[in-house]
Amino acid sequence: MEKIKRFLLPEEELPRQWYNIQAEMPNKPLPPIHPQTRQPMTAEDLSVIFAKECARQELDQTHAWIDIPEEVRERYKYYRSTPLVRAYALEEALGTPAHIYFKNESVSPLGSHKLNSALPQCYYCKQEGVTNVTTETGAGQWGAALSYAAKAYGLECAVYQVKISMQQKPYRSSIMRTFGAAVTGSPSMSTRAGKDIITRDPNHPGSLGTAISEAIELATTTPNCKYTLGSVLNHVSLHQTIIGLEAEKQMEMAGEYPDTIIACFGGGSNFGGLAFPFMRHQLKSQELRAESQEASRKVIDFIAAEPSSCPKLTKGKFEYDFGDAAGYTPLLPMYTLGHDFKPANIHAGGLRYHGAGTIVSQLLKDGFMRGVDIPQTESFRAGILFAQTESIIPAPESCHAIAATIREALKCKETGEEKVILFNLSGHGLIDMTAYESFINGDLVDFEYNGK
Amino acid sequence: MEKIKRFLLPEEELPRQWYNIQAEMPNKPLPPIHPQTRQPMTAEDLSVIFAKECARQELDQTHAWIDIPEEVRERYKYYRSTPLVRAYALEEALGTPAHIYFKNESVSPLGSHKLNSALPQCYYCKQEGVTNVTTETGAGQWGAALSYAAKAYGLECAVYQVKISMQQKPYRSSIMRTFGAAVTGSPSMSTRAGKDIITRDPNHPGSLGTAISEAIELATTTPNCKYTLGSVLNHVSLHQTIIGLEAEKQMEMAGEYPDTIIACFGGGSNFGGLAFPFMRHQLKSQELRAESQEASRKVIDFIAAEPSSCPKLTKGKFEYDFGDAAGYTPLLPMYTLGHDFKPANIHAGGLRYHGAGTIVSQLLKDGFMRGVDIPQTESFRAGILFAQTESIIPAPESCHAIAATIREALKCKETGEEKVILFNLSGHGLIDMTAYESFINGDLVDFEYNGK
Repeated sequence: MEKIKRFLLPEEELPRQWYNIQAEMPNKPLPPIHPQTRQPMTAEDLSVIFAKECARQELDQTHAWIDIPEEVRERYKYYRSTPLVRAYALEEALGTPAHIYFKNESVSPLGSHKLNSALPQCYYCKQEGVTNVTTETGAGQWGAALSYAAKAYGLECAVYQVKISMQQKPYRSSIMRTFGAAVTGSPSMSTRAGKDIITRDPNHPGSLGTAISEAIELATTTPNCKYTLGSVLNHVSLHQTIIGLEAEKQMEMAGEYPDTIIACFGGGSNFGGLAFPFMRHQLKSQELRAESQEASRKVIDFIAAEPSSCPKLTKGKFEYDFGDAAGYTPLLPMYTLGHDFKPANIHAGGLRYHGAGTIVSQLLKDGFMRGVDIPQTESFRAGILFAQTESIIPAPESCHAIAATIREALKCKETGEEKVILFNLSGHGLIDMTAYESFINGDLVDFEYNGK
Repeated sequence: MEKIKRFLLPEEELPRQWYNIQAEMPNKPLPPIHPQTRQPMTAEDLSVIFAKECARQELDQTHAWIDIPEEVRERYKYYRSTPLVRAYALEEALGTPAHIYFKNESVSPLGSHKLNSALPQCYYCKQEGVTNVTTETGAGQWGAALSYAAKAYGLECAVYQVKISMQQKPYRSSIMRTFGAAVTGSPSMSTRAGKDIITRDPNHPGSLGTAISEAIELATTTPNCKYTLGSVLNHVSLHQTIIGLEAEKQMEMAGEYPDTIIACFGGGSNFGGLAFPFMRHQLKSQELRAESQEASRKVIDFIAAEPSSCPKLTKGKFEYDFGDAAGYTPLLPMYTLGHDFKPANIHAGGLRYHGAGTIVSQLLKDGFMRGVDIPQTESFRAGILFAQTESIIPAPESCHAIAATIREALKCKETGEEKVILFNLSGHGLIDMTAYESFINGDLVDFEYNGK
């Protein structure tokens, strides 16, 4: 019998709702706090910078399922469903009895999962009469996705890109410009926040924290302009659940159910996107589960793979902190390294962020998941093995998920267990070849965590 | 009713044979001629530089259908079927009544259709005990595909990349190195052919012609090493017919049949790959067609889109010529601009070739297809409109097919005809962002044809 490698859903099987895990968490995430008043923020407060519907979704702890607008589902059809792939060649190279599957979000035309949230965010802006959107971007995956989504819905788009990433990956700025976006390196002299940072530290390489400050400042000082975010926030993870909802149906097509689910971790949206739809079956207490059909399912081990040099899940503190460097955002309850933490210049730009989203932080605190930290060189070694076996050059961010997967698969080799491991290939690395070149030439180094 | 946008084949529907148009052409292609003896060459002669099975396929004018080896079909499953997509957003932007479809070969993990032939070529080498493969590459799409395919089948791989393309697209060399290949810029000092060219013209930017000479020299002077080619030859087009065979089934799923089929044209393999399976229904004479079921089908207009600055189909001569600059290859009967033609430095590196494959040349001579030539700036204007509507940034080569499609679609707007146009999106342009950046900045120019 021939081995089936890829599983795809027909268009009529595509999910019509996103899954809102907040509604079913045993302990709800704590609310965002206004930095001046120190009061919990309302959706109305949040809609000063975000689209109204995104602000509403952000605080929705009631509705477990939220309809995907038809216009967004139409745009999802440009690239969804993404394939679920059985990684036979990787398994063989590792000599593992584990069954390795990956959800291939790299086939998105912008190269990553980011488009899943860029489309609805721009759609809601358009619906609400907004004409301009702005954002931050690290490696550029989010900025590229937003630039295209803005063009698709007829919005103007301005992107602040982390300066070091802009230098490491110049093609991504060109991609954004091809879609008509204005791109500025952060920290820049175009905002007060940027000027303050440069004054304090003229050689600041930029970080997601600095770029967020600048984008928020632009949004609040420009008429009819909203800020959008590519990760961290609850509504972003919500949109990303399309990944896990598809994967759940596709695993059923494959006739298997995961023992382990792995994704790389920056702010938490690609992790949550894959994990939450599966996690919903194990949110109930042991007693409640025993009474329900969930009892028959395996309990999944959820693993978030973060860089060793930016380890908020494994070494951060759970506390209220700002989402950005300048302190413009609401205070969020999260695992954090401190909003003034300056991440090392690793190539996985999308993972250079000091904090974890509030949902994920609560889930980690409550023991529903765990973090592992991966050194940079281990991540690229894993990425190259993956490329040479499975043919796709992974994004440096995704390399962290692959490295964690390989660790688990090699444990199975020790124990002989035939575990089913599912990981998210969040994006491809074709724009990140400078990093691979550097690794191949032996120039890539590991960074120690340099925080408190 | 919802509009279906993408059509995909389930794995069990994937083609199990390639289509060999040679067997059904009314006038067979003339044979390759040995440059010294001036005698027609046999498969045995050709197998000095090519894998034996490729040499056999090259001259096979008997079998219309050739089995795809199971091991190759397994590897095709890594990315096939590729989607057939209805370009609703592009249609809307053009205001055309035409129905535009494209076959999206850009979803291949290496970014283009080239893998379709790299896999069988490396597979046959492996089967025949070959340990090393070598090749030329222009933009790097073929070199990247071959590097991965070689790794997949455990072969060593050496690539000569056109020097100007190497400078324009440095990431592609890194991609090849990530898959373990050795990459050298051509013309180089590592071969006699390269030295001769550099001696005559120290600033020669390289061309596919110079790189082919160097690769063939390496193959013939290295033990157990075979040369592989990414286009031009009959067996390459044969492997690429997987594109059109899938597309035919997918057009049936869409409930339509094309009036016009368009592909960009370098050596002819992506054009032939899409076109030949459809063309097989109209190879018979009018009289024979009238008697058969083919009579009920529309007669398709086949269009090959070439760059204005390298116009072998529209301005070349049909004659025996060498496939490379140094004159190492067999003499091939083809439309050619002369093997010493030095193509202008356009960004569509894959189209910078002086000649057309022998099958296509015969078909053009016999009136089964036509060529159109596209200026560089028109191609990028088309590419950007396509990106902004359909979300995929196309390869500079593919931009030529898009520009030709837009011309046809705008004719339909004039006449009101609801023609069905199908084109091949042969690859994405994510590694070609320098070209887009240059176009956006207004630095890109058109080149006149500077030949005889």
